[in-house]
Amino acid sequence: MSRSSWADVDCSVAQALDVIGEWWTLLILRNAFHGMRTFEAFQEHLGISSSVLSARLRKLTDAGVLSRHASKSDGRSVEYRLTRKGLELYPVMISLKQWGDEWCSNGRGLRLELLEKATGAPIAGAQVMSRDGSPLHAWEVEVRAGPGADDLTRRLLDKEPPE
Amino acid sequence: MSRSSWADVDCSVAQALDVIGEWWTLLILRNAFHGMRTFEAFQEHLGISSSVLSARLRKLTDAGVLSRHASKSDGRSVEYRLTRKGLELYPVMISLKQWGDEWCSNGRGLRLELLEKATGAPIAGAQVMSRDGSPLHAWEVEVRAGPGADDLTRRLLDKEPPE
Repeated sequence: MSRSSWADVDCSVAQALDVIGEWWTLLILRNAFHGMRTFEAFQEHLGISSSVLSARLRKLTDAGVLSRHASKSDGRSVEYRLTRKGLELYPVMISLKQWGDEWCSNGRGLRLELLEKATGAPIAGAQVMSRDGSPLHAWEVEVRAGPGADDLTRRLLDKEPPE
Repeated sequence: MSRSSWADVDCSVAQALDVIGEWWTLLILRNAFHGMRTFEAFQEHLGISSSVLSARLRKLTDAGVLSRHASKSDGRSVEYRLTRKGLELYPVMISLKQWGDEWCSNGRGLRLELLEKATGAPIAGAQVMSRDGSPLHAWEVEVRAGPGADDLTRRLLDKEPPE
């Protein structure tokens, strides 16, 4: 089966991927989290074609992940900025970074270090947390169907948990 | 520019996407986190072609994210299980789920509820954490080049931070 969208799959992960899971999109967002704002800067840094970059920026803007603003320094040019919806992708971005740091190292140490501004200390990273503030592994969490579950989602729960 | 791999981009996010960023791969891993283990189960639940599923499972196995085992119930059939490397993708998975829950709701409430096994309480979710256990927003974190940064990574840091 070939697909060009998961918009019709009623799963939170599939829906998230339908917005941000296309080739290039997460690297555009990575750069936006670093403060990159202009079409030209994205294109120059990523080495991406104008047509693909235009399409990705349009989709992210239509989805409300980025918003368009007139540049403060040049009112004729456009800047793209993360909205609140976009900024809430921060745990996705940091969890991808830390997994890449851990498992795809270049052997020379961290490429980028993340420091808490208030203290200057390295951050702990992205973690799945309990309500009382403990980090949780996958096997410490159980899943049950919620009120929004459809049949396909319920069928996921018929399987045994990983050992 | 068209690309079929980011293996040559020396960035942790790009490297992570090179392993898990292909179309279908994160949904295969989502199902694996729910305990799904066999080719037939993945194919039936995802509605994915045999050739694409084979290619994705092979890539994930070659990358050490999944491992192949003989089935306990039928020694001739093969099961795919998350390795430690795969299980460490849990924060990626949960951060995608919670963003989809928040921003792509179907209007009927949570599709899946995640509960801490030890307490039965709903989990807090995936968060970026400080060393002293506080959740951090993007604007509370600063970035600096580490020893593994190449020139392209350093150029990311020349931009202004998001407002």
